Amino acid sequence: MNVLKTNKRKIINDPVFGFINLQSELIFDLIEHPYFQRLRRIKQLGLSFLVFPGATHTRFEHAIGSLHLMGLAIDVLRLKGVDITNEEADAVSVAILLHDIGHGPFSHSLESTLVTGINHETLSLLLMEELNREFNGELDLAIRIFKDEYPKRFLHQLVSSQLDMDRLDYLRRDSFFSGVVEGTIGSDRIIKMLNVDADRLVVDKKGIYSIEQFLIARRLMYWQVYLHKTVLSAEFLLINVLKRAKELVTRGVDIYGPPQLQWLLNHYLTAEDLKNGDHKSSMIKNFVSLDDSDIISSMKVWCNHSDPVLSYLANSVINRKLFKIKIMDHSFPKKKFKYYRTIASEKYSVAEEDLDYFVFQGVITNNAYESEYENILILFNSGKIADISEASDIDLTALSKTVKKHYLCYPKEWDTK
Amino acid sequence: MNVLKTNKRKIINDPVFGFINLQSELIFDLIEHPYFQRLRRIKQLGLSFLVFPGATHTRFEHAIGSLHLMGLAIDVLRLKGVDITNEEADAVSVAILLHDIGHGPFSHSLESTLVTGINHETLSLLLMEELNREFNGELDLAIRIFKDEYPKRFLHQLVSSQLDMDRLDYLRRDSFFSGVVEGTIGSDRIIKMLNVDADRLVVDKKGIYSIEQFLIARRLMYWQVYLHKTVLSAEFLLINVLKRAKELVTRGVDIYGPPQLQWLLNHYLTAEDLKNGDHKSSMIKNFVSLDDSDIISSMKVWCNHSDPVLSYLANSVINRKLFKIKIMDHSFPKKKFKYYRTIASEKYSVAEEDLDYFVFQGVITNNAYESEYENILILFNSGKIADISEASDIDLTALSKTVKKHYLCYPKEWDTK
Amino acid sequence: MNVLKTNKRKIINDPVFGFINLQSELIFDLIEHPYFQRLRRIKQLGLSFLVFPGATHTRFEHAIGSLHLMGLAIDVLRLKGVDITNEEADAVSVAILLHDIGHGPFSHSLESTLVTGINHETLSLLLMEELNREFNGELDLAIRIFKDEYPKRFLHQLVSSQLDMDRLDYLRRDSFFSGVVEGTIGSDRIIKMLNVDADRLVVDKKGIYSIEQFLIARRLMYWQVYLHKTVLSAEFLLINVLKRAKELVTRGVDIYGPPQLQWLLNHYLTAEDLKNGDHKSSMIKNFVSLDDSDIISSMKVWCNHSDPVLSYLANSVINRKLFKIKIMDHSFPKKKFKYYRTIASEKYSVAEEDLDYFVFQGVITNNAYESEYENILILFNSGKIADISEASDIDLTALSKTVKKHYLCYPKEWDTK
Amino acid sequence: MNVLKTNKRKIINDPVFGFINLQSELIFDLIEHPYFQRLRRIKQLGLSFLVFPGATHTRFEHAIGSLHLMGLAIDVLRLKGVDITNEEADAVSVAILLHDIGHGPFSHSLESTLVTGINHETLSLLLMEELNREFNGELDLAIRIFKDEYPKRFLHQLVSSQLDMDRLDYLRRDSFFSGVVEGTIGSDRIIKMLNVDADRLVVDKKGIYSIEQFLIARRLMYWQVYLHKTVLSAEFLLINVLKRAKELVTRGVDIYGPPQLQWLLNHYLTAEDLKNGDHKSSMIKNFVSLDDSDIISSMKVWCNHSDPVLSYLANSVINRKLFKIKIMDHSFPKKKFKYYRTIASEKYSVAEEDLDYFVFQGVITNNAYESEYENILILFNSGKIADISEASDIDLTALSKTVKKHYLCYPKEWDTK
Repeated sequence: MNVLKTNKRKIINDPVFGFINLQSELIFDLIEHPYFQRLRRIKQLGLSFLVFPGATHTRFEHAIGSLHLMGLAIDVLRLKGVDITNEEADAVSVAILLHDIGHGPFSHSLESTLVTGINHETLSLLLMEELNREFNGELDLAIRIFKDEYPKRFLHQLVSSQLDMDRLDYLRRDSFFSGVVEGTIGSDRIIKMLNVDADRLVVDKKGIYSIEQFLIARRLMYWQVYLHKTVLSAEFLLINVLKRAKELVTRGVDIYGPPQLQWLLNHYLTAEDLKNGDHKSSMIKNFVSLDDSDIISSMKVWCNHSDPVLSYLANSVINRKLFKIKIMDHSFPKKKFKYYRTIASEKYSVAEEDLDYFVFQGVITNNAYESEYENILILFNSGKIADISEASDIDLTALSKTVKKHYLCYPKEWDTK
Repeated sequence: MNVLKTNKRKIINDPVFGFINLQSELIFDLIEHPYFQRLRRIKQLGLSFLVFPGATHTRFEHAIGSLHLMGLAIDVLRLKGVDITNEEADAVSVAILLHDIGHGPFSHSLESTLVTGINHETLSLLLMEELNREFNGELDLAIRIFKDEYPKRFLHQLVSSQLDMDRLDYLRRDSFFSGVVEGTIGSDRIIKMLNVDADRLVVDKKGIYSIEQFLIARRLMYWQVYLHKTVLSAEFLLINVLKRAKELVTRGVDIYGPPQLQWLLNHYLTAEDLKNGDHKSSMIKNFVSLDDSDIISSMKVWCNHSDPVLSYLANSVINRKLFKIKIMDHSFPKKKFKYYRTIASEKYSVAEEDLDYFVFQGVITNNAYESEYENILILFNSGKIADISEASDIDLTALSKTVKKHYLCYPKEWDTK
Repeated sequence: MNVLKTNKRKIINDPVFGFINLQSELIFDLIEHPYFQRLRRIKQLGLSFLVFPGATHTRFEHAIGSLHLMGLAIDVLRLKGVDITNEEADAVSVAILLHDIGHGPFSHSLESTLVTGINHETLSLLLMEELNREFNGELDLAIRIFKDEYPKRFLHQLVSSQLDMDRLDYLRRDSFFSGVVEGTIGSDRIIKMLNVDADRLVVDKKGIYSIEQFLIARRLMYWQVYLHKTVLSAEFLLINVLKRAKELVTRGVDIYGPPQLQWLLNHYLTAEDLKNGDHKSSMIKNFVSLDDSDIISSMKVWCNHSDPVLSYLANSVINRKLFKIKIMDHSFPKKKFKYYRTIASEKYSVAEEDLDYFVFQGVITNNAYESEYENILILFNSGKIADISEASDIDLTALSKTVKKHYLCYPKEWDTK
Repeated sequence: MNVLKTNKRKIINDPVFGFINLQSELIFDLIEHPYFQRLRRIKQLGLSFLVFPGATHTRFEHAIGSLHLMGLAIDVLRLKGVDITNEEADAVSVAILLHDIGHGPFSHSLESTLVTGINHETLSLLLMEELNREFNGELDLAIRIFKDEYPKRFLHQLVSSQLDMDRLDYLRRDSFFSGVVEGTIGSDRIIKMLNVDADRLVVDKKGIYSIEQFLIARRLMYWQVYLHKTVLSAEFLLINVLKRAKELVTRGVDIYGPPQLQWLLNHYLTAEDLKNGDHKSSMIKNFVSLDDSDIISSMKVWCNHSDPVLSYLANSVINRKLFKIKIMDHSFPKKKFKYYRTIASEKYSVAEEDLDYFVFQGVITNNAYESEYENILILFNSGKIADISEASDIDLTALSKTVKKHYLCYPKEWDTK
């Protein structure tokens, strides 16, 4: 690793991990780049702060924290004799630092409205390639690792797998800031147990219990925080706000907002379109200018828009007059849904075509462990390798089973009891 | 205290203090009010997150935390036999909850630009009176306490003094989120030591060391966090951005921004003006619509404004290309200041009248203990009362002495070495 | 609850929960009693500090912490409308405070040697009855609750069940002091979810994920801390030390030790014997005089005893020259066991009858959830009640399945590789 | 630094600092040595656990923690260009690891009774030299550094000065385990600020506020924890117990205790005597066999001794019936002292010659900063060096002024009001 010039030797104060040292000049320069600074203005957990007031931490901190854990993991693996060159160490550090660079504000809501058809991984890659051009190819190896095109596959797995540094950081961090202390995981212990076998990331056998705890804590965080019903209600409302805004723009109605938001409301690009150079550069330019503040600031203005649907919805989010959300294991009886629809149209005169904005249902799913995707492998003393779901004496198949819940939303004030 | 209806019994998850219970229906309703929900969108420490990435916590959390400490203080005082009626307990709780309700986004910067001549205490009172009207006088007693017009003066001191619940909360909270752990104070122990003598808030003698530690920790937090040189540089830049925006608006130049920001840029109200009912209601309406997002979102658009001064400054804040700031105990030699002015005009062609935006100096001051204002009194076993600065065997006069430092700012890229 | 005289109003500083207030004079007086003060000299986790150096916390702290949680649980249940009289609240608090009063030093090792046939629950009850006499019957109700003879069974369950305050405290506390942070449980959240149905303790439905996390964290703590192989090795050695000491005493050999230890080494009482008043009072007198210090101090002297077996074993514990312990899922092949036996007798001249002290094997078991004993019940919104193992969508049967592991121990220096 | 053999690569779980890695084989072997393992049985804070129940942590953990901080300090200094060879790094690590190896149980009490005239630094050195012989001179450099005979004096200062790793660890650790959270210091930040100038340890200028906070936190810990009046009362009683035991032994009275305690009660060695080889080896042999357990276990037996003074005093410590202690800034009026003496002899028939055991007075002193001893130096950007007491704008002379308090002790039950 390069020796840093004094003015680029930097220590970052992190409430979760304490002092974090930056390891190389490239890392320092990437952090200074506007694309990365933008992450300071994007909350890690979107609207969750409406339920967990402390959860205002940003994707910036998360990226730095993941970088820190990557440094620890590299040290552990090297101590165990795994060969990682300095170039690889730098590259995998860059890859984790930038793994979320393509996240927009309120990611989940945004992805189903403003940038439909383009997920954040695609955008991350797009921005990494853009940065690679600016940095004269210094990110080549990082990108190969990110795209899983590098032979030492475990490097990719440190960046993206079910036990990647991304997850280890976000679980600890989200637990810390939300105040849900029991979501804490033993990131230190898990990292100490990492190993590599046949270029795959594996976990030493005595780490089994830590992995189980990690999976259960993750599941807890999902249902307790990420999929908290009030958080979901807020996110669904935000989706409806943006959908309505887009609909109005399409109809030619004028709505307030900064140019980049206007552009995104006006364009329906797909991943395919990004192959066109002009589209791509417009997309990037506008996308990297957007952050949480634009959505919030614009929504506040929309609270007074002449379109009653937009103003009603915007006001619901801004002033936290969230919709009632009911969650069930099975789908709602049709007549229940219809009942609220009828109230909407008859009592509140909502137009037929706008009903979906006020009374809507759907399905949320979650599985704590995806047995099909980059699964967690346990390395036994004998050299045998097994999936955690076999290695554990708890039946973890339940964790890999997708849990599916049904929801129904409508304005709280319409509740009849 | 009233028994709460089930749907108003509420527990808030706070990463600093754990679960916080809301004590009354009025408290619950005030928290739900848009004026208070607005605080969710105003960071407690303004631009400090540019240096301490975790410091994105908001005035909302701080107000709730202060409320929590007030509950503890009331319990302790009652146990010591201090008479506090339920009405007084409710009122002092409301007063602390709303003590910062008049804070705008990036308070310090805003107060010296957008709302010149009107400080946040004036605005807090204005908004409390507004809320009092809405709540049919239920805030009467809270307001009397807030204004220090209530005979039991210690209630006011719990809300505003050098040992109020405001400070106890913000020091712990800012220490927690900034990651400056050694700024932690013993809020629990200090509260246990509180007492009342002749209607004044006092501290039992054995609390002396805790108070000393509190004063020193506060001082540390000031120099380490609140007045961190990079934080200052960012705040000064933000002031210049807003000043420039105001100047342009005055000149009739069009600039982007939501209506409430436009209004504030266009009006120069003073505290005096607020006696006029119309001005007052316009002021309130616009002020409560403004939050961090408007400033950030607008500044991003201003990065591309045709006015080179505005765009340069806005870009400096948004992309964290902060100005160099030099800090000295004595004032800077005139020729140093002049030197950078000359560079500005000669090398970078800055117009004479715009020089103050690029090269500026000033003074920052701080005193950890203000011996003249609501000073901290120690109660000895003998019944004697003494100021902490006498009671302590450390010479705390230094703490009450105003520390004054001089700063000089200019663009980092102009630095000659 | 009684108002406390000033000198009995007491706050205890607990690193885990902060300040803990004592609620009644009886509680204060019980804590002052020599039987309870004795717990200050008994480590909660026995010899675990040989592996986790921070784990030197005592049964005293644990009892106080459990008392604190009981106070929270009572508050929550009362808020939910569960009827708990002041007398019941006091009694259940006393019961939890004293639930471990019958623990001796290094409990597990002691129970299989010095006080064979008398478990710590029996002794706890014995001591509580003794205290009841001293306190003129003030513990009557506490004892009924402890013995599960009181109609409101949930009170007993708060003291002893799979979700009692005992477990909630010890898991958090052991996690804190051992430094195994991921063993942390959400004691606060779990307590908020407690409820009562038909006099049974139940958990509100939305607490399911917290309970799962609690069970998994408990399992982790078992395998990571309580049954850590080095800890086990130390405990087995201690058992052997005490067995040998007892054997020597029986043979008339003189060994050093305080009178109470001598007495216990000399007597073989059973639970049955305690019905005899004289035996009982001798037993109590000697038992309550014994603590960790006697075992440690005596063992150090035994390191120089003329009996080579005693001195070898004592030295192994004191100077942490612990035996090698091998752990397998299946029983060890007989020839492996025999191999080390042969080494013992042939190479190290261990006498045939002493072989068990040097080479020994056995079985350890653990189940995180005992589906047969005071199981954890979930209360659904519909009013339905179900066992957690049914209510959860994870298959928790694995948790209630007893995990069985085999171990084999022998001196590390005999290892052949 | 040497690469460790696998079985000597060791990670220690520390609740304060997380995982601690051992850096060399010598360190590993020293930790395994009985002299060092003994520290597991010696509480860091003596009898403080009678007031702060969590404060049962040991000198073992403290030594390991100091070692950990030394590693961080070495890294920081090397990064700043300070030349530290691997041999020096190893040696200074050994020196800090063993700096407290000469502490006996309940150090302060012991030093004024059992090992009068020999302080723990002398004993530490004695034991280090003993170990050096065993390890064939491998500790030579460590000892030179410890004795301050090595030219690079800053290495000694890292081990022993007012900003040594010893203090940085014990303040954080004692704060953690006592639960006095506000005693926390910024050990990480202070270490980052360390530097070396002319072979002296100095602190970079921007560390001034951290140093002030460190000094004040230290002062707080002194008065709040180390010199807590109840802790003092317990320690004075323990001194009296040991004095009485020694007196009885001198008189030929038989008292219970392990051989090493008997030996120490029977011998009055001075530092001078240790020059005699036989005395020295006897002293060492007995001293290293003594720990907390011997004192506690013996005192329990002494509770039933026929000497009423010994049994009364021993019982006071064991069952926490501590003496009343009064503390004043000025000396107590003679008649007050006499009053309790009269009660003692007239009402409780205490013999004239035993009065000092029951009614005694004295002085305790403390200064947070010793301006004469290895003082803390601040390095200004200009290269100027100044003592912290000059560099700070707080008048720290008060901190270096010795605070002196007078105490008076007597049995609580004799109190007349």
